[in-house]
Formats: sequence, structure tokens, C-alpha cells
Amino acid sequence: MLGGVPGVAPGNVVILGGGVVGHNSAKMAVGLGAAVTIIDRSLDRLRALDDIYSSQVVTLASNVFNVRDAVRHADLVVGAVLIPGASAPKLVRREMLKTMKPGAVMVDVAIDQGGCFETSHATTHTDPIYFVDGVLHYCVSNMPAAVPHTSTYALTNATFPYLAELCAKGLRQACEDNAAIRAGVNTYAGHITYPGVAESQGLAWSELRALL
Amino acid sequence: MLGGVPGVAPGNVVILGGGVVGHNSAKMAVGLGAAVTIIDRSLDRLRALDDIYSSQVVTLASNVFNVRDAVRHADLVVGAVLIPGASAPKLVRREMLKTMKPGAVMVDVAIDQGGCFETSHATTHTDPIYFVDGVLHYCVSNMPAAVPHTSTYALTNATFPYLAELCAKGLRQACEDNAAIRAGVNTYAGHITYPGVAESQGLAWSELRALL
Amino acid sequence: MLGGVPGVAPGNVVILGGGVVGHNSAKMAVGLGAAVTIIDRSLDRLRALDDIYSSQVVTLASNVFNVRDAVRHADLVVGAVLIPGASAPKLVRREMLKTMKPGAVMVDVAIDQGGCFETSHATTHTDPIYFVDGVLHYCVSNMPAAVPHTSTYALTNATFPYLAELCAKGLRQACEDNAAIRAGVNTYAGHITYPGVAESQGLAWSELRALL
Amino acid sequence: MLGGVPGVAPGNVVILGGGVVGHNSAKMAVGLGAAVTIIDRSLDRLRALDDIYSSQVVTLASNVFNVRDAVRHADLVVGAVLIPGASAPKLVRREMLKTMKPGAVMVDVAIDQGGCFETSHATTHTDPIYFVDGVLHYCVSNMPAAVPHTSTYALTNATFPYLAELCAKGLRQACEDNAAIRAGVNTYAGHITYPGVAESQGLAWSELRALL
Amino acid sequence: MLGGVPGVAPGNVVILGGGVVGHNSAKMAVGLGAAVTIIDRSLDRLRALDDIYSSQVVTLASNVFNVRDAVRHADLVVGAVLIPGASAPKLVRREMLKTMKPGAVMVDVAIDQGGCFETSHATTHTDPIYFVDGVLHYCVSNMPAAVPHTSTYALTNATFPYLAELCAKGLRQACEDNAAIRAGVNTYAGHITYPGVAESQGLAWSELRALL
Amino acid sequence: MLGGVPGVAPGNVVILGGGVVGHNSAKMAVGLGAAVTIIDRSLDRLRALDDIYSSQVVTLASNVFNVRDAVRHADLVVGAVLIPGASAPKLVRREMLKTMKPGAVMVDVAIDQGGCFETSHATTHTDPIYFVDGVLHYCVSNMPAAVPHTSTYALTNATFPYLAELCAKGLRQACEDNAAIRAGVNTYAGHITYPGVAESQGLAWSELRALL
Repeated sequence: MLGGVPGVAPGNVVILGGGVVGHNSAKMAVGLGAAVTIIDRSLDRLRALDDIYSSQVVTLASNVFNVRDAVRHADLVVGAVLIPGASAPKLVRREMLKTMKPGAVMVDVAIDQGGCFETSHATTHTDPIYFVDGVLHYCVSNMPAAVPHTSTYALTNATFPYLAELCAKGLRQACEDNAAIRAGVNTYAGHITYPGVAESQGLAWSELRALL
Repeated sequence: MLGGVPGVAPGNVVILGGGVVGHNSAKMAVGLGAAVTIIDRSLDRLRALDDIYSSQVVTLASNVFNVRDAVRHADLVVGAVLIPGASAPKLVRREMLKTMKPGAVMVDVAIDQGGCFETSHATTHTDPIYFVDGVLHYCVSNMPAAVPHTSTYALTNATFPYLAELCAKGLRQACEDNAAIRAGVNTYAGHITYPGVAESQGLAWSELRALL
Repeated sequence: MLGGVPGVAPGNVVILGGGVVGHNSAKMAVGLGAAVTIIDRSLDRLRALDDIYSSQVVTLASNVFNVRDAVRHADLVVGAVLIPGASAPKLVRREMLKTMKPGAVMVDVAIDQGGCFETSHATTHTDPIYFVDGVLHYCVSNMPAAVPHTSTYALTNATFPYLAELCAKGLRQACEDNAAIRAGVNTYAGHITYPGVAESQGLAWSELRALL
Repeated sequence: MLGGVPGVAPGNVVILGGGVVGHNSAKMAVGLGAAVTIIDRSLDRLRALDDIYSSQVVTLASNVFNVRDAVRHADLVVGAVLIPGASAPKLVRREMLKTMKPGAVMVDVAIDQGGCFETSHATTHTDPIYFVDGVLHYCVSNMPAAVPHTSTYALTNATFPYLAELCAKGLRQACEDNAAIRAGVNTYAGHITYPGVAESQGLAWSELRALL
Repeated sequence: MLGGVPGVAPGNVVILGGGVVGHNSAKMAVGLGAAVTIIDRSLDRLRALDDIYSSQVVTLASNVFNVRDAVRHADLVVGAVLIPGASAPKLVRREMLKTMKPGAVMVDVAIDQGGCFETSHATTHTDPIYFVDGVLHYCVSNMPAAVPHTSTYALTNATFPYLAELCAKGLRQACEDNAAIRAGVNTYAGHITYPGVAESQGLAWSELRALL
Repeated sequence: MLGGVPGVAPGNVVILGGGVVGHNSAKMAVGLGAAVTIIDRSLDRLRALDDIYSSQVVTLASNVFNVRDAVRHADLVVGAVLIPGASAPKLVRREMLKTMKPGAVMVDVAIDQGGCFETSHATTHTDPIYFVDGVLHYCVSNMPAAVPHTSTYALTNATFPYLAELCAKGLRQACEDNAAIRAGVNTYAGHITYPGVAESQGLAWSELRALL
């Protein structure tokens, strides 16, 4: 029980990455009463989180020392380091698991980009967990599918305006008018147009504007 | 997902009873971002909860009208009406279930005192749920067993001081010195000494002090 | 009484638009203890409001379904959709009023840009309200005049620095040095220089920089 | 506008009395963003309010020095000193009004017990205000009538349980069983049974138990 | 710097005792952004603190295991265990100091009752600190004298009402009318009348009421 | 004692400048329970602070009237107006000190840029304070040195990523790749390359890019 009760210490939750996923994880963990630590590379991001949560979370700059020390005391580690279109870095190395509490839990939300724990491999909603060195791993691909109602509305809220513009204008015009749509094109006319994808596949990429 | 995300409405959580269990349920539901309503008979209790949660919860006086109306819009109903030593009243009647959202969830924490929903019957951790009129019921006996680590510490924190005093002084002396221990004695020398137990069994009870 | 008291449900306040006006309305409604819903087109804006208010407000993406559903349960609807220099969109259609609670209140803060309710028309501080389908409308032009003390300081805080720069440098130089002043020029030398104004009047506009 | 806006100082609200009325006034004033000071005789009450509001309110022990100093800087003074069944003390003396800001507002919620400002006299919802030394007085009898919907529910929540018990048992038996009902009896069989009423009328009183 | 800054972990503050002194220490430590743990024997007290501070403090039941573990990770330990009129128990034993961080700080607010650390001895405002096993001790007698302005007002607020009653009525009558004054009498007519004082001095005590 | 205690008014803290330093000062002062006023030129900054602190701070637009009025009632004034690379403006003039409370404290965090009080001059950690007109001045150069542990981590968090890039790439390449490093170069090849430094020294400056 992450939040504990008065008189019993709450669980330690360590969240790697303070972006949208990490922030939402922190919000829920704080809400349940856990002791929450967020680790991120960006000091600006940590300052923003500190403004929102004040003494309810500990914010730490991301480096090997801080990750190792935080993971060692954690009851739950959430890997939420997402680099759009690129592979996630392996922040928790295999040897760190030996220092963790037996029965601790690691959830790798970055699994769809390859995961941010060295020991992560994708699992499914029907067979979601496995153990490495006594540490429980939950690395389900397409995690939002577990809450289909909320996920569908959230995804639709975010994507419908682009869809409406694409339908009304067609792809070429929509790309010319709207930088956000342009930025979302991964391939066009047989070329990779998104640098992160090209890099993760070891291929070349082309500037979309030159292809339109 | 009870708390929703920005842009998607959160779930409605209705908690019947604002005592320790209801309060802790509300704390977690608020923490997750749900829209929380607490219904209790005691205005003093509702005022105290309003002081703590302010505009984060709606507090309602307990009466048939408010229960019926709240249950109708609920995604989750938590039954947490516990009357020490006595059977819980049946606040949610069977006919109210027909007005509820399909797929709504009801959790009856009072199940160990008989439950506070008319449609509750005790289930187990291995086969925990059943449906009535399309509404999911979770009525597991001894619910705290699901979080054994926290429960054990919490229970020990609460009971150990009494245990220590009983060991040191013996039952008779401990009862004479400590009103809280005296109040916890259910039977003594073959007599029921706790009015709530006597009433629920239809038996007579005796004053403990007279028996010591 | 919007906020209710412990034991009595608070009023439902629906705020259309999460900009400065909508945010301040929400802050006051939350402060008074009301159940507040904010509807906005921008998910980023909703996320920012969710960071500030957490489980104290419900944030909803703006679409016809959400507006219609929210308005139906509202005790107070605040129209705060302001598009600088352009007419406000009519988010609440006349037919939605028939579904509202009798005696509900609608306040159209966007009235100076034409209003964001279909049934809005400008009123005055001396005769401020009228009813349509049993719903009270408050659509006073120049609403801030009701709190002249605060409004005057707030307006002066915002405008005095520009005024000082205009006095010190003259219009032409101030426009060249300061993009914010440039952006505030509506007409210059007989030409409309602000696109929103030109569009709402059906006239052509000129680039200010070309005229200086 | 009590709460100010960013960049403009909020109004100073001084609340005399930290009981239910004063607490609710403080909650709303804090919610609107005002700078709130609560003055009460009971340090325990001030500690409880400080726990709830922390640095959002200033709590001051009630004495002539603190009242005089607080009133002098106030934009709004709320008199909420209610002594059940007895006349309210006159905490704000007439000579203090001369030191107040012109246009300041005084609301005497204790008016139904005679008021807690020396210059208070009861007014009505149709002609609610008057000025003394340039200070606006609002001293309407039966103030809750201005919010009849909320007041009716709140009053019914508080009184219905007693009413139900009185109907079921009759007055004599209800008084014997329930100390709260007993405490609410003002007269019985031609005798005053409530000390506060007797004192405020200069009459003798009798112990209810002796009369039953 | 107890509170840390975004990106740097805050200090760990452990507070022994959740009464008025411990609560105020916690309030300040939380306010500064520290990671705060409060240890107390009373679960009711811990629940009340948890209601106020929620996930901003960790509450732990007082036992040797919890004290030892908390002290080991602390940057600051505040001893605030006060038992009115009696000696404070020695919660931090000398051998625990060897496990503490070098440079950690211990403040014994209970020093005027003998202190609640085994290694405490009273110091003065002019020579306030000393080291044991590398741990800094601050055990100044009459600590409130460091903030004379606030202390004087606070003490006067608390004591003046009793003083006024004593002056008006004389000691005997004031004791008869007011249980709080009666409870504060330590000696009367040559007899100790306060059990805690008698116990700490190894002397007998007399019931005040019998002496009046 | 800045925060007061329940029943005793807290101290007034006035913070000039709402940037990182001012914000952190406000956070601690609010945390301690003080009555906090922040004065800044930027309305956007004040709005952001108001979102975070709501009714816990008063925000005021910076002008001579507001500074003078706020300073007059202050117990502590924190000067935190930092303009990168340039001298701080003198916001508190000498004549304002005569209106201040005797014993008030002024801390000039901007002292390393010359200070933002007219009466500031740099002092040291060994002889940190002096008085002007009865007002205590604390103007220690390199103030962060008082909390070396936190400062070192904070500074390293902020600077290490640049250092790593400089080591890996050399100065010229790092400047070409990273605008933030480029912006931090004060002199290069004998030329001043930072406009603020040039201006404060009355010297000319060169564009770094032209020198690379």
C-alpha cells in the first residue's frame, strides 16, 4: 500500500523523467500519499515540478549517482524517460537491481521505445510481469490500453483537431499551413522525414519541406 | 482511470460513511483526481472533512434522497458505514442498482459486519467479484489482507500498547487501570460485556465492572 | 450560495474558456467552494490549469458534446471565450437553454466582442439582466466598471509602462523598439494594421512595419 | 474586489469570532484571495484555524488593542461573535469608526443577538444598509434568508434528526434520552430552562430535569 | 540548507513528539521544504497531523525500531517530547549517535524537563552548542528567549485571561470556579498539589480541593 | 520569529524581485508562515507567482509608490532584483529608511551586482551586518557560501552539463553547437562579448560569432 497509513511509513516511489508521463505518475503517487522522488535532466523542468508540488516531492538532477542512490531505496521505480521518435536511454543498469529491496516493483512506461531499464523487455496485458534478481518488472506494450475509456477520450482530444484539418485541407495544404502537422509526418513519398526515426533505424532522412 | 486526465472528466466516487475507512478512501480518491462525494449522518464529521478537503470533496447529509441521487451518477461506490460491534445498515437498496451506470463498481468495506448494500454477500481474495444488474460488486471479507505489509504494521501500532499493558499487569488489573482496555472486552467469565455484540446476537449483556 | 455548506451540495459552475478571465473566474469559484468545470480548446491550457487546481476543477476539451452536457447541469455558466480583436464564437446555442435548470445564471464576459452565447445581447450596469427560457442572462458591457478601484490599478499596471515609453520616444520610435507596442497598433495613417479588426469588419489590412 | 488581481493588493478582511460563522466567512474570503485576519478569544480555536489555513490567515488573540489595530486597516469587518442565547459583546466601539478607511464595510452577522458593533441596528433585506462616519453598515436580520436554497437544506440537515426523534418519542421521552434535545429546550411548563435566555431577560431559570 | 533547491535533495528532519512544539517545528520544516518525519506514541495525534499535512510529512508510531531507523538518516533531530510536570523520557540513546551522519544536528526542546536525548545537558544562549560523537547538540534552556517579541505576546495571550480572573476573584475563588486554574496550581499551603511534580521529586502530593 | 504563532501576528516580509532568488525567498517565508509581499515589474511573473501561491502572497506591480508603502510596514526586506551582467537598480532609497520600523532587517541578495538598496555596501561572512537609521543591513558578498553543501550541488547541477560539453568538444565547437554556452561567454580573444558587462564598465563589446 503505497501511501501507508498514519503511523506506518509510506512507500518510496522513484520516477525517472519529469515529462507528461512522469508528471502524471508523480501526481497520482503524491495523491496516494507516497514519498515521491522525480529525477530529470532539465533543471527548468525540476523547478516547474517543485513549484507545483513544493515539499510533496523531492526533485533530483539526473546523473548516475542520484539514480543509483534513489533506486536502492525505492519500493516502486517508474521509467518514464521518453525521447520522441528515438530509443530511450538505459538509466537503470542491471547491476543496480542487486542493491534494490526484494519485492520492489519496476514499471517501464518507455517500453514502446525500447524501455529505459537495461532489464526491460516488452510483455503483454495477459502475461504482464516477470522477475529479475527478485525485482518485479511490468513492461506491458501499449500500456494505455489498460484504461481504454480514459485513453480513447484523451487521444481523441489530442488528435481530432489535426484530423479535422487534414480532412478539410488534404495532407499537402495542411502541412504547409500547420507546423505541428508538419512535425508529425514520419515518412513522405518513400522518404523518412523525421530525424529521430531515421537515427534509430540507422537510415538517412529528408527535409519534408523539400518533398512537398 | 478514476482521475481522468486534463481534458477528460474524472470518475465520480461516492463514499458512504466518513469515518476512518471512508476518510482514507476519500483521501486516496481525491489524490488520484476523482470527483468525490462523502455522505455521512454526522454534520460535525462532514464539517471536519470539509475543513480538510475544502472544495476537493462534496459533503452530503445522509438521507435516502441524497444516497439515491449520488449513487445514480457514481462510477464507484464505497460502502464504509461501520457501527462498532453492530450490523451495518443497508444504505443502498436493490432497486437503486437499476438506476446506476452499467459497469459501475461497488466496494463494500463493511462486509465483515454484514455489508451496507442490500445486494452484498461476502466473497474471497481468490474469487472477489460478482455482478448484480450489471453493477460490479467487490465484497471481500478481511479486505486489509490484500496489503499485508501495511496492515500488519498498522494493526500492531494500534494494538501493541494494549498487549504490553495486559502482559505486564494481567487482565483484571489492566481493565481497572485503563478504560480503553475495559471498553474492548467482549466477553468475560461467560457473560457478554459489549452491548453491540449482545444486541446483534439477541442476547443479554452484563456490565464488565460488576464482574471484575 | 455557490459554495454550499458542509452537508449541502455546492453549485455547479461551468466556465467556457481558460484564459485570463476564465482562470480568474475559476479561482474565485473554487475559492467559494463551488464544483467547477473549465472547457477550453487548448490541451496545454487545460494541463496548466490542472497543475494549478488538481482535483479542485474538472477540465474538459471543448466540443459540442462536452459544452451541451456541462451546460445542462450548470447553476452558473461563465462565457469567457475571448479571441483578441475578433468576434467570439457562439458556444452556447439557443436550443441548449431548454435543457438547463430553471433559474440558472449565464454571465457573458465576452459581451464586448459580441458575446459567446447565441442569446446574449449587451446590457448596462443600471439594467443588467434579462431572462431567456427561464435562464437569467447577465451581459453587461464593460463589466470591470463594477469594481472601479481594482480595475483602474490593474489596467494602469498593464498599460503605464507602454505609455511611458510612448511619451519618451514618440510613436514611431516606440514601435520600432518594442514589438509589444507594435502589436497593439490597430490603425495607422488611415490603414487598419491589426488582422483581427480587419477580419471582423470585412476590410483589408496593412503590415504596420511597411507604413512606418 | 476583495481578492485583488496579480499586481494589485487584495482587500483586508477582519473577522471577529472564529466559530462556525466566522470560519465560513474566512473560508470564502481566503477563497476569493483576500488578506484575512481572524480574531477570537480562544487560543485553541485560533490554533485549529491556523492548522487549516496556515499562512493564508493571520490569527490574533482578542483584546482591545488587536481589535482596534485590525479594524483601522480593514476594508471589510465581519462581526461573527455569537454567544448562544446571550447578547453579543460590543467589540467595535463607535470611536473606532473614525480611524477606519472611508468606504469600508461592516457586516454584523450577530445582529439577531443584538449585534457586536456598537453602531449596529437591525435592517431588512429590502433596505439593508446605512452609513455611520462614512463606514457602510450591513446588519440585516435573518441574513441566511438571502440564500434560501442553501439555508433551507442546511437548517433541515441540522434539525431534522431531532424533529424525527421528537415525533417518534414525544417531548418528555426525547428529552430524557437525548442530552442535545434537552439542551435545546428554552422554556418548559411556563419556566425558562435556558440560562442564557434568562440572563439576557433578567429573569430566573429552572433546571429542565427537575420539571420533567 | 534544509529545504534543498530543485535538483538537490532536501534535508531529513526527524521530530520526536507531535504536540504543540513538535507540530510547530514540523510546520516550519515543511514550509522550508524539508523531508519531515514525526514520531509520536498517540495514533490519534498522528492521524490529526496526517490530515493537516497529508503527503508532506511521514508519521511513525513511536517505538525503539522507528526512532533508531529515523535518527540514522536524519540531518536534524528535534526532541519535543514534553510530559507536563514530569521528566522527559530519553528516546535517543547514546549508542544511536554512532550511526548518525557526521555533522547532523540535534535540538532538544525538552531540555527544561531534563531533555529527551541521553546526551543532552542544558546550555545557554551565549554558549549554545557542543558535540558528542560528531553530532552537534543544541540544548539551550529557555529557548523561547531567542525570539522574545513573539514569545512575550504568545505567553501573554495564553496566561492573561487566568491572571485577570485571579486578580478579580482571588486565588481561592478562582480555583473553585475554574478547573483550568485549579489544574495549574503546583503547591498550596506548603503541599505539592501537582502529581507530576511530586513524582519527579520523589515526594507525596495532596489533592488541591481538600486544601482549599 | 517571522511566522508568528496562532494568536500573534506574523512578520511582514517584502521581496523586491520575483525571479529565482525572490521566488525561493518567498517560498521559505510563506513556509514559515510570514505575511509575504512580492514586488516585480513583470505582470506575467506576478501572475505566475499568484497561480502558485494564491492567497498566500500579495503581488504588487513595481513602482515607487508601492515600494515605499510596502517597505514602511516591513519587518524584513529582501532585495532580489538581479539584471544579468548589469548593475542592480537602487529600489530602496535612503530616505525610505526613516519611515521603517526600528529593528527592521534588510537583506540585499543583489549585493554582488552592487546591491538594490541605496544604503547597501558589501560585507563578509565574518562581519556580516551594519545599521543605517536603525535598520539592520545584511549585504554579504557570495551569500550562497553560507550553505556550501546545497550550493555546491545546485551549482554543479546547473553547470556540469556545459562543462562536459566544453571538455568533449573544445570551446570553439561547443560555442557553435550550443547557444546557451555561446550566451555565457563574457570575453574572447581580448574582446568583451557580453553587452551587460561592457555597459557596466563603459567599454565597447564585440559579437562573439564574428570572433570565432
